Amino acid sequence: MLTRIDHIGIACFDLEATVEFYRTTYGFEVHHSEVNEEQGVREAMLRVNGTDDGGATWLQLLEPVRDDSPVAKWLAKNGEGVHHIAFGTADVDGEAEAIRDKGVRVLYDQPRRGSMGSRITFLHPKDCHGVLTELVTSAPTETSAEPEAH
Amino acid sequence: MLTRIDHIGIACFDLEATVEFYRTTYGFEVHHSEVNEEQGVREAMLRVNGTDDGGATWLQLLEPVRDDSPVAKWLAKNGEGVHHIAFGTADVDGEAEAIRDKGVRVLYDQPRRGSMGSRITFLHPKDCHGVLTELVTSAPTETSAEPEAH
Repeated sequence: MLTRIDHIGIACFDLEATVEFYRTTYGFEVHHSEVNEEQGVREAMLRVNGTDDGGATWLQLLEPVRDDSPVAKWLAKNGEGVHHIAFGTADVDGEAEAIRDKGVRVLYDQPRRGSMGSRITFLHPKDCHGVLTELVTSAPTETSAEPEAH
Repeated sequence: MLTRIDHIGIACFDLEATVEFYRTTYGFEVHHSEVNEEQGVREAMLRVNGTDDGGATWLQLLEPVRDDSPVAKWLAKNGEGVHHIAFGTADVDGEAEAIRDKGVRVLYDQPRRGSMGSRITFLHPKDCHGVLTELVTSAPTETSAEPEAH
Protein backbone atom coordinates (compact mmCIF):
# COMPACT_ATOMS: atom_id res chain seq x y z
CA MET A 1 0.00 0.00 0.00
CA LEU A 2 1.20 3.50 -0.83
CA THR A 3 0.43 5.60 2.21
CA ARG A 4 1.75 9.10 1.45
CA ILE A 5 3.33 11.48 -1.00
CA ASP A 6 6.87 11.09 0.35
CA HIS A 7 8.50 13.83 -1.70
CA ILE A 8 8.55 15.85 -4.87
CA GLY A 9 11.93 15.74 -6.63
CA ILE A 10 12.89 19.06 -8.20
CA ALA A 11 15.91 19.32 -10.50
CA CYS A 12 17.96 22.52 -10.42
CA PHE A 13 21.19 23.90 -11.82
CA ASP A 14 22.39 25.51 -8.58
CA LEU A 15 21.44 23.78 -5.34
CA GLU A 16 22.45 26.64 -3.04
CA ALA A 17 20.49 29.23 -5.04
CA THR A 18 17.42 26.98 -5.13
CA VAL A 19 17.61 26.23 -1.41
CA GLU A 20 17.84 29.97 -0.81
CA PHE A 21 14.76 30.56 -2.98
CA TYR A 22 12.70 28.04 -1.00
CA ARG A 23 13.94 29.46 2.30
CA THR A 24 13.37 33.14 1.61
CA THR A 25 10.15 32.75 -0.39
CA TYR A 26 8.34 30.15 1.71
CA GLY A 27 10.34 29.67 4.91
CA PHE A 28 11.29 26.04 4.25
CA GLU A 29 14.59 24.98 5.82
CA VAL A 30 17.04 22.25 4.87
CA HIS A 31 16.65 19.25 7.15
CA HIS A 32 19.28 17.09 5.49
CA SER A 33 21.84 17.25 2.67
CA GLU A 34 23.82 14.50 1.01
CA VAL A 35 25.55 13.40 -2.16
CA ASN A 36 24.18 10.26 -3.80
CA GLU A 37 27.05 9.10 -5.99
CA GLU A 38 25.05 6.29 -7.55
CA GLN A 39 22.33 8.71 -8.68
CA GLY A 40 24.91 11.37 -9.57
CA VAL A 41 23.26 14.12 -7.52
CA ARG A 42 23.71 16.46 -4.59
CA GLU A 43 20.45 16.90 -2.75
CA ALA A 44 18.77 18.94 -0.05
CA MET A 45 15.68 17.69 1.76
CA LEU A 46 13.16 20.32 2.94
CA ARG A 47 10.43 19.02 5.22
CA VAL A 48 6.98 20.46 4.43
CA ASN A 49 4.55 18.52 6.64
CA GLY A 50 3.93 15.37 8.62
CA THR A 51 1.60 12.68 7.26
CA ASP A 52 -1.00 10.45 8.87
CA ASP A 53 1.03 7.29 8.25
CA GLY A 54 3.67 8.58 10.69
CA GLY A 55 5.94 9.87 7.93
CA ALA A 56 6.44 13.22 6.26
CA THR A 57 6.32 14.95 2.89
CA TRP A 58 9.45 16.65 1.62
CA LEU A 59 10.78 18.72 -1.23
CA GLN A 60 13.91 17.07 -2.59
CA LEU A 61 16.09 19.57 -4.46
CA LEU A 62 18.53 17.87 -6.83
CA GLU A 63 21.64 19.17 -8.58
CA PRO A 64 23.67 16.82 -10.79
CA VAL A 65 27.28 16.18 -9.85
CA ARG A 66 28.28 14.72 -13.20
CA ASP A 67 27.19 15.38 -16.78
CA ASP A 68 26.18 11.79 -17.47
CA SER A 69 23.81 11.46 -14.51
CA PRO A 70 20.12 10.97 -15.35
CA VAL A 71 19.24 14.27 -13.69
CA ALA A 72 21.90 16.12 -15.74
CA LYS A 73 20.48 14.71 -18.94
CA TRP A 74 16.95 15.56 -17.85
CA LEU A 75 17.96 19.15 -17.03
CA ALA A 76 19.70 19.56 -20.39
CA LYS A 77 16.48 18.56 -22.11
CA ASN A 78 13.84 20.16 -19.88
CA GLY A 79 15.46 22.89 -17.82
CA GLU A 80 14.68 23.25 -14.12
CA GLY A 81 11.44 21.83 -12.78
CA VAL A 82 9.68 18.84 -11.23
CA HIS A 83 11.74 15.75 -12.03
CA HIS A 84 9.76 13.05 -10.23
CA ILE A 85 7.19 12.31 -7.53
CA ALA A 86 7.64 9.70 -4.81
CA PHE A 87 5.09 7.62 -2.92
CA GLY A 88 5.95 6.32 0.53
CA THR A 89 5.25 2.72 1.46
CA ALA A 90 6.25 0.38 4.27
CA ASP A 91 7.18 -2.28 1.69
CA VAL A 92 9.00 -1.02 -1.38
CA ASP A 93 9.99 -4.56 -2.39
CA GLY A 94 6.44 -5.89 -2.33
CA GLU A 95 4.95 -2.83 -4.01
CA ALA A 96 7.56 -2.89 -6.78
CA GLU A 97 6.90 -6.57 -7.40
CA ALA A 98 3.12 -6.11 -7.47
CA ILE A 99 3.38 -3.14 -9.83
CA ARG A 100 5.81 -4.98 -12.12
CA ASP A 101 3.29 -7.82 -12.29
CA LYS A 102 0.75 -5.31 -13.62
CA GLY A 103 3.02 -4.61 -16.59
CA VAL A 104 4.60 -1.34 -15.42
CA ARG A 105 8.37 -1.26 -15.97
CA VAL A 106 10.31 -1.01 -12.69
CA LEU A 107 13.75 0.46 -13.36
CA TYR A 108 15.78 -1.48 -10.78
CA ASP A 109 15.88 -5.23 -10.15
CA GLN A 110 16.25 -4.50 -6.45
CA PRO A 111 15.63 -1.25 -4.52
CA ARG A 112 18.65 1.03 -4.18
CA ARG A 113 19.72 3.59 -1.60
CA GLY A 114 17.78 6.87 -1.52
CA SER A 115 17.79 9.94 0.71
CA MET A 116 18.45 9.54 4.42
CA GLY A 117 19.02 5.81 4.26
CA SER A 118 15.76 5.02 2.48
CA ARG A 119 15.29 2.25 -0.08
CA ILE A 120 13.90 3.32 -3.44
CA THR A 121 12.97 2.26 -6.91
CA PHE A 122 11.53 4.04 -9.94
CA LEU A 123 8.74 3.27 -12.41
CA HIS A 124 9.19 4.09 -16.08
CA PRO A 125 7.51 7.42 -16.88
CA LYS A 126 6.22 6.12 -20.22
CA ASP A 127 4.21 3.51 -18.29
CA CYS A 128 2.93 6.16 -15.83
CA HIS A 129 1.35 8.78 -18.11
CA GLY A 130 4.56 10.81 -18.29
CA VAL A 131 5.34 10.92 -14.58
CA LEU A 132 8.66 9.52 -13.37
CA THR A 133 7.42 7.82 -10.21
CA GLU A 134 9.50 6.68 -7.26
CA LEU A 135 8.55 4.25 -4.51
CA VAL A 136 10.33 4.75 -1.20
CA THR A 137 10.54 3.03 2.15
CA SER A 138 12.11 5.34 4.71
CA ALA A 139 14.81 4.24 7.12
CA PRO A 140 12.98 3.59 10.42
CA THR A 141 14.66 6.38 12.33
CA GLU A 142 13.95 8.98 9.66
CA THR A 143 10.30 8.24 8.98
CA SER A 144 8.78 11.05 10.99
CA ALA A 145 11.85 13.24 11.47
CA GLU A 146 11.14 16.71 12.77
CA PRO A 147 13.13 19.64 11.36
CA GLU A 148 16.56 20.34 12.83
CA ALA A 149 16.81 23.23 15.23
CA HIS A 150 18.24 26.39 13.62
CA MET B 1 2.69 30.01 6.43
CA LEU B 2 2.60 27.12 3.99
CA THR B 3 1.66 24.07 6.02
CA ARG B 4 1.43 21.19 3.56
CA ILE B 5 1.84 19.89 0.06
CA ASP B 6 -1.82 20.20 -0.90
CA HIS B 7 -1.62 18.47 -4.25
CA ILE B 8 0.41 17.57 -7.29
CA GLY B 9 -1.28 18.62 -10.54
CA ILE B 10 -0.77 16.09 -13.34
CA ALA B 11 -1.81 16.92 -16.90
CA CYS B 12 -3.15 14.11 -19.08
CA PHE B 13 -4.78 13.61 -22.46
CA ASP B 14 -7.48 11.19 -21.28
CA LEU B 15 -8.80 11.66 -17.76
CA GLU B 16 -10.65 8.34 -17.54
CA ALA B 17 -7.62 6.35 -18.71
CA THR B 18 -5.36 8.15 -16.27
CA VAL B 19 -7.77 7.67 -13.37
CA GLU B 20 -7.89 3.99 -14.26
CA PHE B 21 -4.09 3.81 -14.26
CA TYR B 22 -3.87 5.31 -10.76
CA ARG B 23 -6.66 3.06 -9.50
CA THR B 24 -5.39 -0.24 -10.86
CA THR B 25 -1.67 0.42 -10.32
CA TYR B 26 -1.74 2.00 -6.87
CA GLY B 27 -5.28 1.64 -5.52
CA PHE B 28 -6.04 5.37 -5.39
CA GLU B 29 -9.72 6.22 -5.81
CA VAL B 30 -11.42 9.35 -7.08
CA HIS B 31 -12.78 11.42 -4.21
CA HIS B 32 -14.15 14.27 -6.30
CA SER B 33 -14.53 15.28 -9.95
CA GLU B 34 -15.44 18.62 -11.45
CA VAL B 35 -15.08 20.87 -14.47
CA ASN B 36 -13.35 24.19 -13.88
CA GLU B 37 -14.50 26.30 -16.81
CA GLU B 38 -12.27 29.23 -15.91
CA GLN B 39 -9.18 27.01 -15.91
CA GLY B 40 -10.45 25.08 -18.93
CA VAL B 41 -10.02 21.64 -17.32
CA ARG B 42 -11.84 18.56 -16.17
CA GLU B 43 -10.26 17.20 -13.03
CA ALA B 44 -10.28 14.23 -10.70
CA MET B 45 -9.00 14.48 -7.14
CA LEU B 46 -7.39 11.36 -5.63
CA ARG B 47 -6.68 11.56 -1.92
CA VAL B 48 -3.29 10.08 -0.94
CA ASN B 49 -2.85 10.95 2.75
CA GLY B 50 -3.85 13.23 5.59
CA THR B 51 -1.49 15.93 6.82
CA ASP B 52 -0.57 17.23 10.26
CA ASP B 53 -2.19 20.62 9.62
CA GLY B 54 -5.60 18.92 9.46
CA GLY B 55 -5.67 18.82 5.66
CA ALA B 56 -4.73 16.26 3.05
CA THR B 57 -2.46 15.70 0.07
CA TRP B 58 -4.05 14.85 -3.26
CA LEU B 59 -3.21 13.96 -6.81
CA GLN B 60 -5.10 16.28 -9.14
CA LEU B 61 -5.48 14.77 -12.60
CA LEU B 62 -6.23 17.39 -15.25
CA GLU B 63 -7.56 17.07 -18.80
CA PRO B 64 -8.14 20.19 -20.87
CA VAL B 65 -11.67 20.89 -22.09
CA ARG B 66 -10.66 23.43 -24.71
CA ASP B 67 -7.62 23.87 -26.94
CA ASP B 68 -6.79 27.36 -25.70
CA SER B 69 -6.65 26.46 -22.00
CA PRO B 70 -3.25 26.78 -20.30
CA VAL B 71 -3.17 23.05 -19.62
CA ALA B 72 -3.90 22.24 -23.30
CA LYS B 73 -1.02 24.46 -24.40
CA TRP B 74 1.25 22.94 -21.77
CA LEU B 75 0.35 19.40 -22.92
CA ALA B 76 0.97 20.28 -26.57
CA LYS B 77 4.46 21.43 -25.64
CA ASN B 78 5.44 18.93 -22.94
CA GLY B 79 3.24 15.86 -23.23
CA GLU B 80 1.72 14.25 -20.15
CA GLY B 81 3.39 14.81 -16.78
CA VAL B 82 3.56 16.93 -13.64
CA HIS B 83 2.04 20.31 -14.47
CA HIS B 84 2.28 22.06 -11.08
CA ILE B 85 2.69 21.61 -7.34
CA ALA B 86 0.45 23.25 -4.75
CA PHE B 87 1.15 24.33 -1.17
CA GLY B 88 -1.70 24.53 1.31
CA THR B 89 -2.08 27.57 3.56
CA ALA B 90 -4.79 28.96 5.82
CA ASP B 91 -4.31 32.39 4.20
CA VAL B 92 -3.83 32.39 0.44
CA ASP B 93 -4.42 36.15 0.26
CA GLY B 94 -1.75 37.02 2.81
CA GLU B 95 0.77 34.50 1.46
CA ALA B 96 0.30 35.73 -2.12
CA GLU B 97 0.80 39.32 -1.03
CA ALA B 98 3.92 38.50 1.01
CA ILE B 99 5.41 36.48 -1.85
CA ARG B 100 4.62 39.21 -4.39
CA ASP B 101 6.43 41.67 -2.12
CA LYS B 102 9.53 39.46 -2.42
CA GLY B 103 9.53 39.98 -6.20
CA VAL B 104 7.92 36.73 -7.31
CA ARG B 105 5.22 37.23 -9.94
CA VAL B 106 1.76 36.15 -8.72
CA LEU B 107 -0.43 35.36 -11.72
CA TYR B 108 -3.80 36.58 -10.37
CA ASP B 109 -4.65 39.90 -8.75
CA GLN B 110 -7.04 38.07 -6.45
CA PRO B 111 -7.33 34.32 -5.72
CA ARG B 112 -9.71 32.41 -7.95
CA ARG B 113 -11.81 29.28 -7.48
CA GLY B 114 -9.94 25.96 -7.33
CA SER B 115 -10.90 22.36 -6.67
CA MET B 116 -13.66 21.60 -4.17
CA GLY B 117 -14.44 25.23 -3.43
CA SER B 118 -10.86 26.19 -2.59
CA ARG B 119 -9.29 29.58 -3.33
CA ILE B 120 -6.08 29.49 -5.35
CA THR B 121 -3.41 31.51 -7.05
CA PHE B 122 -0.29 30.65 -9.03
CA LEU B 123 3.32 31.86 -8.98
CA HIS B 124 5.20 32.33 -12.24
CA PRO B 125 7.38 29.27 -12.91
CA LYS B 126 10.23 31.42 -14.21
CA ASP B 127 10.44 33.03 -10.77
CA CYS B 128 10.32 29.61 -9.03
CA HIS B 129 13.20 27.69 -10.64
CA GLY B 130 10.95 26.22 -13.31
CA VAL B 131 8.15 25.00 -11.04
CA LEU B 132 4.62 26.28 -11.65
CA THR B 133 3.58 26.73 -8.02
CA GLU B 134 0.05 27.07 -6.68
CA LEU B 135 -1.05 28.38 -3.30
CA VAL B 136 -4.37 27.05 -2.04
CA THR B 137 -6.70 27.61 0.87
CA SER B 138 -9.21 24.79 1.12
CA ALA B 139 -12.89 25.35 1.68
CA PRO B 140 -13.45 24.72 5.42
CA THR B 141 -15.62 21.64 4.95
CA GLU B 142 -13.20 19.99 2.54
CA THR B 143 -9.95 20.50 4.41
CA SER B 144 -9.60 17.06 5.90
CA ALA B 145 -12.09 15.16 3.76
CA GLU B 146 -11.91 11.41 4.05
CA PRO B 147 -12.32 9.27 0.92
CA GLU B 148 -15.83 8.48 -0.22
CA ALA B 149 -17.11 5.01 0.57
CA HIS B 150 -16.92 2.61 -2.38
